[in-house]
Amino acid sequence: MENAAAARLAQQIRFILEVDRLKEIFRQTLVTHSRRHENDAEHSWHLCLMVLVLAEHANDRDLDILRVLKMLLLHDLVEIDAGDTFAYDEQGRADQHARECRAAERIFGLLPPDQAEEFRSLWDEFEARETPEARFAAAMDRFQPMLLNCATEGAAWRKHGVTSDRVVARNRHIADGAEAVWTHAAEMIRQAVARGHLLP
Amino acid sequence: MENAAAARLAQQIRFILEVDRLKEIFRQTLVTHSRRHENDAEHSWHLCLMVLVLAEHANDRDLDILRVLKMLLLHDLVEIDAGDTFAYDEQGRADQHARECRAAERIFGLLPPDQAEEFRSLWDEFEARETPEARFAAAMDRFQPMLLNCATEGAAWRKHGVTSDRVVARNRHIADGAEAVWTHAAEMIRQAVARGHLLP
Repeated sequence: MENAAAARLAQQIRFILEVDRLKEIFRQTLVTHSRRHENDAEHSWHLCLMVLVLAEHANDRDLDILRVLKMLLLHDLVEIDAGDTFAYDEQGRADQHARECRAAERIFGLLPPDQAEEFRSLWDEFEARETPEARFAAAMDRFQPMLLNCATEGAAWRKHGVTSDRVVARNRHIADGAEAVWTHAAEMIRQAVARGHLLP
Repeated sequence: MENAAAARLAQQIRFILEVDRLKEIFRQTLVTHSRRHENDAEHSWHLCLMVLVLAEHANDRDLDILRVLKMLLLHDLVEIDAGDTFAYDEQGRADQHARECRAAERIFGLLPPDQAEEFRSLWDEFEARETPEARFAAAMDRFQPMLLNCATEGAAWRKHGVTSDRVVARNRHIADGAEAVWTHAAEMIRQAVARGHLLP
């Protein structure tokens, strides 16, 4: 291998080691069995697996699945620097995008320039939620914590006193990516209220 | 949504909740910062991200990246039932495939039949390591724990008294998927021996 190629590979491997930190960014959601907090790396894996299983329910039947997966694999890397912002933390959400943009500069900037640009562009696409791929990716990103919350008797919702109207307001854009999934999710929210796992 | 479609979605969601257990299957490898054991879900995420970064180093330049990602997203699901088998546990490895086949029957069998068949076929392809996609996926699956081991002073190797010839024998098939990555990995092994992190 020539020197330039070896140097490029070494730079890519440093990036791969740096993002190991995603496994240390813990979320409000609990995993269903041991009930410990979930981290961003396993959350990202779960979303990607959901894409494989649920892609058929996307509103857009011609979805580029590979691009959805790419977005989801990297969508939380900015939280290595910016930390996880709870979906219902209005104060934290105020400057979330600015903090995450600074993080994107540093973290994607560890890659060779062509890849840094590709990753940044995928992350921008995910954040903008304008393409069918970004809308479906965002739908998975909202539906997965709802699933885990429902399976853990609303643990994260109850801890933070979240009400069902806020859950509906925050998650209804699931319908922009996958109507059928939102129909199911809305029923889950009704059941969570009926069971006392979510405030009315 | 008609009843059949709703029932299919409900079955898919039960599968998605069941595989949340992958986050509870811990491996011998340590994560680099807190030095706790890594679990299979975050390992799977890490491999997929590595694919995005390192695909250009695959021996086969016409790799179907989406199929590589699909294989890696589901390759460890069988460990929900069969548990993780350490790469250097010869006894555990003797009946590993039989245990994992039983697990594949049950776990993929939770999906609607068409998806169960697709997942099983992807897992069989990964296990057989005969296609360029499976070889590259397997290369990532071997290279990632080496990276983490090197970054944690050979913690898992030292704990189990693994020698460098066994690491070479177990991982040299990285070259079948990505020669350049194996060149880099072989140098990492030499350095780990030189630093006393791996027995000669």
